[in-house]
Amino acid sequence: MFRLPRLVPRLRGVRYSSSIPRFPCVEAHATRESRLASGPSTLRSSSSSSGPEPPYARPNPASYNMFHSPTPLPLTYHSSPLPAFDIAYETWGTLSPARDNVILLHTGLSASSHAASTPANPTEGWWEKFIGPGKPLDTNTFFVVCTNVLGGCYGSTGPSSIEAATGVPYATRFPILSIFDMVRAQFRLLDHLGVEKLYASVGCSMGAMQSLAAGWLNPERVGKVVSISGTARSSPSSVAMRYAQRSVLMADPNWNNGFYYDAMPPHTGMKLARQIATITYRSGPEWDARFGRQMRPLPADASPDLPRVPALCPDFLIETYLDHQGEQFCLKYDANSLIYISKAMDLFDMTLPALQALRLPEAESEPAGAVDSDVRPHTTSHSKSHPPPTNPPAHLPALAQGLAPLAQTPTLVLGVQSDILFTVEQQREVVDALRMAGNERVVYYELGGVWGHDTFLLDVLNVGGAIRGFLS
Amino acid sequence: MFRLPRLVPRLRGVRYSSSIPRFPCVEAHATRESRLASGPSTLRSSSSSSGPEPPYARPNPASYNMFHSPTPLPLTYHSSPLPAFDIAYETWGTLSPARDNVILLHTGLSASSHAASTPANPTEGWWEKFIGPGKPLDTNTFFVVCTNVLGGCYGSTGPSSIEAATGVPYATRFPILSIFDMVRAQFRLLDHLGVEKLYASVGCSMGAMQSLAAGWLNPERVGKVVSISGTARSSPSSVAMRYAQRSVLMADPNWNNGFYYDAMPPHTGMKLARQIATITYRSGPEWDARFGRQMRPLPADASPDLPRVPALCPDFLIETYLDHQGEQFCLKYDANSLIYISKAMDLFDMTLPALQALRLPEAESEPAGAVDSDVRPHTTSHSKSHPPPTNPPAHLPALAQGLAPLAQTPTLVLGVQSDILFTVEQQREVVDALRMAGNERVVYYELGGVWGHDTFLLDVLNVGGAIRGFLS
Repeated sequence: MFRLPRLVPRLRGVRYSSSIPRFPCVEAHATRESRLASGPSTLRSSSSSSGPEPPYARPNPASYNMFHSPTPLPLTYHSSPLPAFDIAYETWGTLSPARDNVILLHTGLSASSHAASTPANPTEGWWEKFIGPGKPLDTNTFFVVCTNVLGGCYGSTGPSSIEAATGVPYATRFPILSIFDMVRAQFRLLDHLGVEKLYASVGCSMGAMQSLAAGWLNPERVGKVVSISGTARSSPSSVAMRYAQRSVLMADPNWNNGFYYDAMPPHTGMKLARQIATITYRSGPEWDARFGRQMRPLPADASPDLPRVPALCPDFLIETYLDHQGEQFCLKYDANSLIYISKAMDLFDMTLPALQALRLPEAESEPAGAVDSDVRPHTTSHSKSHPPPTNPPAHLPALAQGLAPLAQTPTLVLGVQSDILFTVEQQREVVDALRMAGNERVVYYELGGVWGHDTFLLDVLNVGGAIRGFLS
Repeated sequence: MFRLPRLVPRLRGVRYSSSIPRFPCVEAHATRESRLASGPSTLRSSSSSSGPEPPYARPNPASYNMFHSPTPLPLTYHSSPLPAFDIAYETWGTLSPARDNVILLHTGLSASSHAASTPANPTEGWWEKFIGPGKPLDTNTFFVVCTNVLGGCYGSTGPSSIEAATGVPYATRFPILSIFDMVRAQFRLLDHLGVEKLYASVGCSMGAMQSLAAGWLNPERVGKVVSISGTARSSPSSVAMRYAQRSVLMADPNWNNGFYYDAMPPHTGMKLARQIATITYRSGPEWDARFGRQMRPLPADASPDLPRVPALCPDFLIETYLDHQGEQFCLKYDANSLIYISKAMDLFDMTLPALQALRLPEAESEPAGAVDSDVRPHTTSHSKSHPPPTNPPAHLPALAQGLAPLAQTPTLVLGVQSDILFTVEQQREVVDALRMAGNERVVYYELGGVWGHDTFLLDVLNVGGAIRGFLS
């Protein structure tokens, strides 16, 4: 018979109540603040040239192109437009003489326009392996354009930008944005570049929302749509996860209702928010394979002969990993941009009633082509090759009605089974709604693997292969 | 052809930058603090009789029984024992003359001993529908005992308790606890009650860990084990979710390294931690059915003619739900108890190497019956009726080795497919490990439904039915 250890008291080890406990993980917040406060002052988003280090490190403006629109941008949720705005963008490949080889690439929440290295900025981009000669977005064929999203902090106009009328950053006086606002700002850039029609609109995560929104806003202008690990209707559980992030951020006293651009930014709140976000980006199976229950190394002065006493601060590698992810992010991204863009994601809903609620209430202001509520879409139709789903969500018919403008657009939907933020149920919902709306050219891939939501950043073989095949 | 609305600027609505924005969701924190600071002073856990309201509302001590152990309790992770300790407990049913009808019920992280109403405390308990005459834990047959866990704040000794040696609360001078420590404290209570052997050890969530630990610590003393929505090895993703909670709590300046018992407790950190926890307790499908994308009602003074402008504070019902859950919890549970107990859950690991690491390193201190590392368990054996799993996790053989003492104990394992905190993979792992260890009396139920981890609180029909059948 196999014998097992009994739990017995230790004869050696640390007495637990002999001294006042210390918490290095908590002290780290204060240490960082004091380090930043005494550090060198560099480029800031506000007009002030003194004060602590910036809330985030903007890329060098020489490393991207800038489009300035002096024409006001109408906004979905506000009566007054954005008076003028900037869009930072980068391009790869060559615009064809007919200007018909353009792929507009949309980013996730926190990415910059730097999707891949360029002569002006040779550092690796966030989709480096996907863009280039012979790569899935093949620059031998395509001209790829990627922008920093409106509301962001990497060159495009956002809460940290100076409001011309006041000479100070917008902060939380910045308007609430919709995903549609972001896309219409991108269309302005395409106007500026002389691009009438996109070969394709491609996006992952929030970028997939924008990709669908682009095709919906202007079906004539978008040849193909690629939606990877996105959704056409933010689910309450994804709203919950983003709400938790905004809550911890806004509870940081340094957030100061968003007016922190001349003081210490809410680094601690940002770090905590990113820890939560990081949990939603990967999957349990991946962490089990990568970290398991491994503990962080003991301090150099720890005796190897003494039993290890756990701490209330991080012990496990998964904890130090989350801590590191949060620490990195909080110094390079603007807190208000996180709040505004994550809110825009929450608000995204392409079911017909939600889209109709975005309309003007006045009949006299009704735009040409607006919906006549007596007209019913053909929600019972379905692609011959794809029967209606069993057990569809209650909102599926409304989503099919909302997506009707995409009925003629070839669309690639790709989802990942281990994604807990944009679940496969949501991917199938987009596919089913498009097919229910009559779209016979929907291609759907569902990937396994353990990378969760981040699969689109990592799986060049499968994600890249699906894109390459669909675009060719 | 079905026509859809176009997105057009609003002609009416709120100008976005006309005034300094206000954030009622953030102001709520300060409002609560000032309300508590000026409120009536009631029973506090510290000896101080003045000061702000208590960090949590302890139940009336007359509503539960108290067991005081003057004998020190050896601890898993510390050389010095807990010198003395209290365990609050409640009972239902009648102890049989042979004292052989006892069910020890273990709680989840934050529950008190009040599992069901009693004459001394007629308010509903957390498992009211499961305990009573004719109910799954049938008090016509069984004598049910439930304790507040060691480390808790509902009567049992924990960080908020007064340390006899100093006359002040332990705070974070309290020792790190293990799940095994908690169970050994419960065994002391059973000694006190004259209960030699349990009919069954029953627990859900963290209680399932305790239930397995009880059978492991003393197989002769535990007749049957029930493990519902628990695990025998905390996964890195569950550690991640609890780490995020501890991090936001410990970042609240009011936490003050745990020494807040004479000042304002970290209510805001607790509220944020509970919001995160609540996300892990339910499931996306449930929220979609319950809340969908419904928004909270507009303020009474809002004009119904104006379009709704979203806010950075909660708009959706799912957000106000999380906010409410956090708000409720932060006033009734002690922050340090949350930290210590959630850490004990993280540390729980019944794989053999982890259990061996809990031993004394000195050979001369080796307890009788301790493992001989040359002795190999029969890890290749498996129940005839249950072939080995395909694609088992790498740690499964080590878990089977660790669970070997439970090889003869009839065990019910119950899991829920929508549980994101204790996934079905973890339930199957417990089952497979027990069977691999040679246990031929493992019963496994896997439930569908949308209630996620909280299913054990809600699904009387299926969870209750499984327990009733297993215990009879």
